[in-house]
Amino acid sequence: MIRIGVDAMGGDYAPKEQVQGVMLAIKNIPDIEINLYGDETEIRKYLTNDERVHIIQSDYVIPMGEKNAIKTIKEHPNASMALALSSLRKDENDAVVSSGATQALIAGAHILVRRMPGFKRTAIAPLIPSLNKKPTILLDSGANLEIRPEHMLQQAYFAVVYAKEVLGTLNPVVGLINIGTEEGKGRDIDKEVFQLFTESKLFEFYGNVEPKSVMNPPCDILISDGFTANIVMKTIEGTAKGMGEFLKRELKSSFFGKLGAFIARKNLKNFKKSISPEEIGGALIYGLYRPVIKAQGASKAYGFYNGIRQAATIVRTGVFSKVEKYLEEIKESEPVNE
Amino acid sequence: MIRIGVDAMGGDYAPKEQVQGVMLAIKNIPDIEINLYGDETEIRKYLTNDERVHIIQSDYVIPMGEKNAIKTIKEHPNASMALALSSLRKDENDAVVSSGATQALIAGAHILVRRMPGFKRTAIAPLIPSLNKKPTILLDSGANLEIRPEHMLQQAYFAVVYAKEVLGTLNPVVGLINIGTEEGKGRDIDKEVFQLFTESKLFEFYGNVEPKSVMNPPCDILISDGFTANIVMKTIEGTAKGMGEFLKRELKSSFFGKLGAFIARKNLKNFKKSISPEEIGGALIYGLYRPVIKAQGASKAYGFYNGIRQAATIVRTGVFSKVEKYLEEIKESEPVNE
Repeated sequence: MIRIGVDAMGGDYAPKEQVQGVMLAIKNIPDIEINLYGDETEIRKYLTNDERVHIIQSDYVIPMGEKNAIKTIKEHPNASMALALSSLRKDENDAVVSSGATQALIAGAHILVRRMPGFKRTAIAPLIPSLNKKPTILLDSGANLEIRPEHMLQQAYFAVVYAKEVLGTLNPVVGLINIGTEEGKGRDIDKEVFQLFTESKLFEFYGNVEPKSVMNPPCDILISDGFTANIVMKTIEGTAKGMGEFLKRELKSSFFGKLGAFIARKNLKNFKKSISPEEIGGALIYGLYRPVIKAQGASKAYGFYNGIRQAATIVRTGVFSKVEKYLEEIKESEPVNE
Repeated sequence: MIRIGVDAMGGDYAPKEQVQGVMLAIKNIPDIEINLYGDETEIRKYLTNDERVHIIQSDYVIPMGEKNAIKTIKEHPNASMALALSSLRKDENDAVVSSGATQALIAGAHILVRRMPGFKRTAIAPLIPSLNKKPTILLDSGANLEIRPEHMLQQAYFAVVYAKEVLGTLNPVVGLINIGTEEGKGRDIDKEVFQLFTESKLFEFYGNVEPKSVMNPPCDILISDGFTANIVMKTIEGTAKGMGEFLKRELKSSFFGKLGAFIARKNLKNFKKSISPEEIGGALIYGLYRPVIKAQGASKAYGFYNGIRQAATIVRTGVFSKVEKYLEEIKESEPVNE
């Protein structure tokens, strides 16, 4: 059985959507059991089936807008999120899923979860929708504002293993986010990464990729430093939200707009789904001892279920042990500086 | 009369759309005359009226995908783009509009156009659509990968004058693009800019703005370094293109989708227009002696006309002399280091 720790209380619609997501997971994924961290009375309101589900009582919830993340996590070891994260160290779970406050989850992961030996810089890797293929892995979406090329090589390799094992991409290709496609474009860090990735035999490197093609990139993994990739992620989010609003407003502005939208309502719903993060799962934190998945704060049951499914797939396919094996190999052959 | 130099040969659909855009401008803007740089035979094919239009023959066109921009501009002083740019120095035009290769236009502007005295770093500022207000000015969209806070202050001030005079914004507010909204977020440069802009009395500073709100920001001007803002611009472009494709595909996938789209076709067309760069004009290069506007490479006549209209408005409202006046004032009171 794959044991998944779930923070039942984190997220805009917790614990309702989280518990309903767990119910979906229990129904659809036979080889998992769930440890649910949160307020038992609240959780039981939505629990329709307690087969393979255990509740661990927690009396504190880390607020969604938490600004002083490190302090809060340290002061509340009994918060649902903190309990879930600590369970990994105690070997009570194989993975953790939370849609709680991002900064608190990252801080908590650093403080409460052991690191993967040899992995130098953690990263956060969400999946973004792609027009003509499997979702694109975007990283580092916010953990490291400053980083060295060798650390980005480790992160890229992790993403390659993930793409192969979890997304089923046969030969994952890595692209470097940049302001131009030619070699020599960008800042010093970009030029150094271009050089290192070109020389590396670890994976296929496409070269520089402009975010003009962010929804149809010539690669499976888009990488940059934690500042840039976070800006890309948030710009995608902002543009998608803004465009959705422009479309809605325009369709509501006239009789024919409303009529057309009514007739094509199934298609518009599918459109909304195709660009929704709910459909593709949560963001994985790279570099920890075991998988921690950050589901969207606004997750509904189906989105949260997808996060659990993703966690189970990562454990089932042994992504982490494959990356660990590689890190052990390079420790001898080509040591990475701290 | 406001004299506008137009590169007739730059752009994906040149000279047809450029010349047709000029015809629209001549018809709608009574106080302009146009100097058209390009191949006279080609231009005359689309010229329906030569009132207030002069053609200056040029035998070379800088290719759209030009990679070695500086070399090309230097080797082809008689290219249509180079002739148009050089005309500013000779006081033959008050502004220049081109939809030619961006890198070549920037290189050409640096080599062939005088700089505005006291303005330390040129910047490129496109306009992006906004849900609830006038277009947002985004800068620096690609000129300076590394920059100092004092130079960004000058650029922000330029944008404030532009927003007031050209867009008619009463009290333009400046926001700093960042990965979080709280003070202290981001890289060192972001923290320094936050500090400097907070202390400055030049304009209202909103603080940090996450690109989640890029299409509905709490400010009129979004600023960052040339790498970051370029990434934001290209991510908007890529997301908009990708989402448009998702929508089209979905509507075409079923009978009801096609029917609904047919009935709401006017609304869908308006939607496309509302997010199109054609509607809002070109990107202005800040820091030159006179305005140079980069219209989209894919400009059609209407988009190119908008670029000309924008150039005329900048000249008519005296944006440049207002910025120059400020730069002269600070030269004495608070000198900006080189």
